[in-house]
Amino acid sequence: MKRISLGVAFGALLLLPSLAWADDGVTAGQFTANNVWMMLCAGLVFIMHLGFATLESGLTRAKNTTNILFKNTFIVSAGILTYAALGFNLMYPGDFSLGGFFGFAGFGIATDAAGNTPEYASGGYTYWTDFLFQAMFAATCATIVSGAVAERVKLASFMVFSAVFVAIVYPILGSWKWGGGWLDAMGFYDFAGSTLVHSVGGWGALAGAWLLGPRIGKYVKGELNPIPGSNMPMAAIGVFLLWLGWFGFNGGSVLSADPAATSFTLVTTCLAASAGALAAIFTSWFAFGKPDLSMALNGILAGLVGITAGADTVGIASSVVIGVVAGAIVVGSVIFFDKIKIDDPVGAISVHLVCGIWGTLAVGIFSTNPEHSFFVQLVGVGAYGVFAFGSALLIFGAIKATMGLRVTEGEELEGLDLAEHGGHAYDLAGPTSILESVTGPASNHMGRPSTTLANERA
Amino acid sequence: MKRISLGVAFGALLLLPSLAWADDGVTAGQFTANNVWMMLCAGLVFIMHLGFATLESGLTRAKNTTNILFKNTFIVSAGILTYAALGFNLMYPGDFSLGGFFGFAGFGIATDAAGNTPEYASGGYTYWTDFLFQAMFAATCATIVSGAVAERVKLASFMVFSAVFVAIVYPILGSWKWGGGWLDAMGFYDFAGSTLVHSVGGWGALAGAWLLGPRIGKYVKGELNPIPGSNMPMAAIGVFLLWLGWFGFNGGSVLSADPAATSFTLVTTCLAASAGALAAIFTSWFAFGKPDLSMALNGILAGLVGITAGADTVGIASSVVIGVVAGAIVVGSVIFFDKIKIDDPVGAISVHLVCGIWGTLAVGIFSTNPEHSFFVQLVGVGAYGVFAFGSALLIFGAIKATMGLRVTEGEELEGLDLAEHGGHAYDLAGPTSILESVTGPASNHMGRPSTTLANERA
Amino acid sequence: MKRISLGVAFGALLLLPSLAWADDGVTAGQFTANNVWMMLCAGLVFIMHLGFATLESGLTRAKNTTNILFKNTFIVSAGILTYAALGFNLMYPGDFSLGGFFGFAGFGIATDAAGNTPEYASGGYTYWTDFLFQAMFAATCATIVSGAVAERVKLASFMVFSAVFVAIVYPILGSWKWGGGWLDAMGFYDFAGSTLVHSVGGWGALAGAWLLGPRIGKYVKGELNPIPGSNMPMAAIGVFLLWLGWFGFNGGSVLSADPAATSFTLVTTCLAASAGALAAIFTSWFAFGKPDLSMALNGILAGLVGITAGADTVGIASSVVIGVVAGAIVVGSVIFFDKIKIDDPVGAISVHLVCGIWGTLAVGIFSTNPEHSFFVQLVGVGAYGVFAFGSALLIFGAIKATMGLRVTEGEELEGLDLAEHGGHAYDLAGPTSILESVTGPASNHMGRPSTTLANERA
Repeated sequence: MKRISLGVAFGALLLLPSLAWADDGVTAGQFTANNVWMMLCAGLVFIMHLGFATLESGLTRAKNTTNILFKNTFIVSAGILTYAALGFNLMYPGDFSLGGFFGFAGFGIATDAAGNTPEYASGGYTYWTDFLFQAMFAATCATIVSGAVAERVKLASFMVFSAVFVAIVYPILGSWKWGGGWLDAMGFYDFAGSTLVHSVGGWGALAGAWLLGPRIGKYVKGELNPIPGSNMPMAAIGVFLLWLGWFGFNGGSVLSADPAATSFTLVTTCLAASAGALAAIFTSWFAFGKPDLSMALNGILAGLVGITAGADTVGIASSVVIGVVAGAIVVGSVIFFDKIKIDDPVGAISVHLVCGIWGTLAVGIFSTNPEHSFFVQLVGVGAYGVFAFGSALLIFGAIKATMGLRVTEGEELEGLDLAEHGGHAYDLAGPTSILESVTGPASNHMGRPSTTLANERA
Repeated sequence: MKRISLGVAFGALLLLPSLAWADDGVTAGQFTANNVWMMLCAGLVFIMHLGFATLESGLTRAKNTTNILFKNTFIVSAGILTYAALGFNLMYPGDFSLGGFFGFAGFGIATDAAGNTPEYASGGYTYWTDFLFQAMFAATCATIVSGAVAERVKLASFMVFSAVFVAIVYPILGSWKWGGGWLDAMGFYDFAGSTLVHSVGGWGALAGAWLLGPRIGKYVKGELNPIPGSNMPMAAIGVFLLWLGWFGFNGGSVLSADPAATSFTLVTTCLAASAGALAAIFTSWFAFGKPDLSMALNGILAGLVGITAGADTVGIASSVVIGVVAGAIVVGSVIFFDKIKIDDPVGAISVHLVCGIWGTLAVGIFSTNPEHSFFVQLVGVGAYGVFAFGSALLIFGAIKATMGLRVTEGEELEGLDLAEHGGHAYDLAGPTSILESVTGPASNHMGRPSTTLANERA
Repeated sequence: MKRISLGVAFGALLLLPSLAWADDGVTAGQFTANNVWMMLCAGLVFIMHLGFATLESGLTRAKNTTNILFKNTFIVSAGILTYAALGFNLMYPGDFSLGGFFGFAGFGIATDAAGNTPEYASGGYTYWTDFLFQAMFAATCATIVSGAVAERVKLASFMVFSAVFVAIVYPILGSWKWGGGWLDAMGFYDFAGSTLVHSVGGWGALAGAWLLGPRIGKYVKGELNPIPGSNMPMAAIGVFLLWLGWFGFNGGSVLSADPAATSFTLVTTCLAASAGALAAIFTSWFAFGKPDLSMALNGILAGLVGITAGADTVGIASSVVIGVVAGAIVVGSVIFFDKIKIDDPVGAISVHLVCGIWGTLAVGIFSTNPEHSFFVQLVGVGAYGVFAFGSALLIFGAIKATMGLRVTEGEELEGLDLAEHGGHAYDLAGPTSILESVTGPASNHMGRPSTTLANERA
């Protein structure tokens, strides 16, 4: 969108005062529509937090469900607040020091309306929309870790980790590319965060799962003992909401509602998701002999993570290829991590780290932009790997040495819901406990008086 | 946005016929973008009904789930229809009588396109969008009552109450401020309905819970016997959807897509929600010794209800303070209502009434607009209290005297699903009843033949 | 919106380069806002797939839940991919042969940006948005079949059917009207697909349910044995998400964000849904003596399907009438299909086929456009019936003759989750199997050691 000379714009203003934005190259209508799109995308990325919460609680055991929901509720809340206090100005510092590695523009965000004009971001959105959209992104990064450490991490320890990770690690690492730091200067490309969000979260997940060790009973005498999810509809809700959320995650990363760019991005995103699903379905069907729902769901996520780095810059056919490869990779990766006894209850490392790396490198292979280089992509992947994994190890390590990281064996067996929260997530067995407190002990150990039970059968 | 003289606009029209809206101070693009935003917000407020349905069914017992879902399905449907027939023209009557207390513009809404031009609402939206957005609001008000009276109210009685409340009470009370009635003339401020929607619903909830009395077994021999929710993932889905819905509830209350105003509103809304969550988490952790998920979730809602009255007019830091206070208040309020034996299964009174009052008064404390007065806010809170609580008592009282309000003890113990609907909401135990009807009685009282059960264990 | 002469547009361009779209009758702001709306609508139609998945899994037995979720995950993925490869260019071929019955514009969709200008669709959206919106529609058609054949269809057989149905049958039949084929030339009207999507899917559902026969135990010795749903909150989530999705299904069918047309469409859509709910509630209450949640939910869908053909062209009052009739019809239709022993586990045939026919004919009765004719609507309904039912019978028949269509009796009794996928969808009973693998056999057959069980009761 070319800017026009002030003189011409001024002439236009005499005729149409309501087109006051014209001197920024966007009309008032475009600015408004752009900002609507970006607010919508912020909302869609927000709903990804519900997606993660339901996916993780669906793929783990019922005895840890409340704990997982609690963690996700905490992360999104703490993530938004710390991003307002600190993260936003760490990630977009304006000026850098340390050779493009660090910058900080000060605490807090502004109440006053300065910057909420089209000058702020070429009319793409307002300052506040910018903050909100980026804040929703930030919180997803820590959420990715949640799934990998589920069912055995101490609640308070995880809360400390995720708060530090989202408040400090994510925004500093993010500034290297999106804030205009050293990797941006080098030509590294990551459209919507295959690396900046997903791999960074995935490295945290790997560090956590590795330091924690596997869940009791997962690997017994060298044998893999799969622990199936407790609520597959929740898992499906999670993945479909994540896919929907990706409309905002990738579509919003255009940073305006530019019709061609946004719609193209949505098409590559949806094709990669679909291709990832089919690839994972058939790969796992072949590998396991059965069509596996959790693999199909993870295939969707794999395709989505894979396309995220290049959704705006690869061709239609390439987006399908990227999705197919991601869907196949995720199945192999899940098998691999089980082989090396890294226990990841929801497959977060395979989805977010492995496919995040794949997607970032895929930009170097498939991008239609000749400036994108496989080598630079590799440098970016490596740099994020070193620093994200290193930071996560450091934080988790410090917590392990002080607060401890893992619950006791008794708590793990009993389930974190009872151990940490004093209650259960589900009580679906029918007329029950309160009734007992009135009528005396129930006639059978499911807690239902046999007469009521009989009625239910009728 | 200033209006321009017709002469100038006419000049512009000669050049650009497609900018025909320019004489209303908005371009066609702005009008279109504004209306898109408002339709989106109507959709987001609609989805709050699913949020309420899942939240309430998650926080209550499994034996009353179908009943709760049925009530919520009824309310949104009846609410939209009665609002079209009656409510919209009661709430926005144009002309008032009775000193700004009452007005009515006639039955029904218009099919013809008159008014669907930018003249209707300064280009903020069309007449039909206006109706739809407001209709979605109206139905939320009655839904708030649903949670507080859950697990013991007679279905038909509740249906009558909610239909009357949403069709008549809510719109008349709403007209006092949003319709331009006496409280509006006085300078009372309630941006998106901390009082007009949430407190009004909350007063109805208080009247209902008080007249009904507590559920059997909740308070036994002076002791509080907590009745935990049956499905915490449902409760979490509910709260996250409500948060998302609040993007529309508050964002749409700008009544256009004005970029600065809408995005600012979303930021204060999300900060208050996050602050409410953290405040409720730590307050309840301190109070109960355990991190409580339902309190964390109610903390989010508390923050959201609290910020609703002033989301556009308090500063960034103030929005965090409002959320923190709301999150702490909601925990204390839940404890308080249990002390005085008002049994509110989902905490609706604490969230919507108490935090609604807090949010309305907070405008008098934190507003950046010097015209807002704490005293006038207090008058508004009092007036709505008297009339909303009074009306609710009257309607519930009349129903109690005629149809009866509460199910029998037997029905309550058995559960409303069986008693009112003749079935259960859940049957998740695995291969079961139909199988029995074919193969004869099952080999164990969970209704699974032991061979199948053995397979499941494998 | 009238087009303006190129000369005038050129004059305008000299003044306002950012209004370069003006020569297409839309400003840049309108084009952007239109495209935002259409992308949003594509997202909303996407989420209908989650709606179908949760609705179907809620209304069927827990032992078939994973299977249903798997089918829905497959359909949306395969649907989007085949629509990109084939369907889009079958449905909108540009040129027809065979007298308007068939056309094909070639394989695949375009990567290059040609066509992503306002010239493409009068500024209503881009080429890519067009594809995405239509792709989401296509996949819904096959999903409708899924519910009717649930709990007994072979997975691989259904996958083949749905892939062929969505890739070939739906787009060719759709081209007859929306692609500009013979029925369009005749004046047939179907705004958003009461017939093109819902009846076509419904005919497939009827063919499948008929060829498969009823589930074991549904009709025993001439008696109807209702098989209740296993998870009513899932069913409610499904219907509310479908309602929300219909904002995009109908609102997007305006094919721009025209403020009056889109908002009017949303109002008629929501009024019909509400009216359908109330009509189904009271009809079923009268018929069965109990208020039935699944009928209330199906009443919403009935109203939505009913209004879909004429949402933009019938009056406000007519939309209510259409919804009321649809809500009553759906109850009668469910009873009827049970009478003739067509077993449709979720009521898909009644909702989508019967109410789809009703809605299409209703255009002939209630349309405010004098060009719409009841007779032509009847011709359209008949033509789609013959070809959609015929095609579905042919495909299902061919599959039956080769791969087989139905699982074995043993597999059906055991449940498709175990039989086809080797696992269960739910395991919500609390601390369980893994624990056993560590501590030895559990003390009771629910798999909980009695000590833990005792804790849960405390």
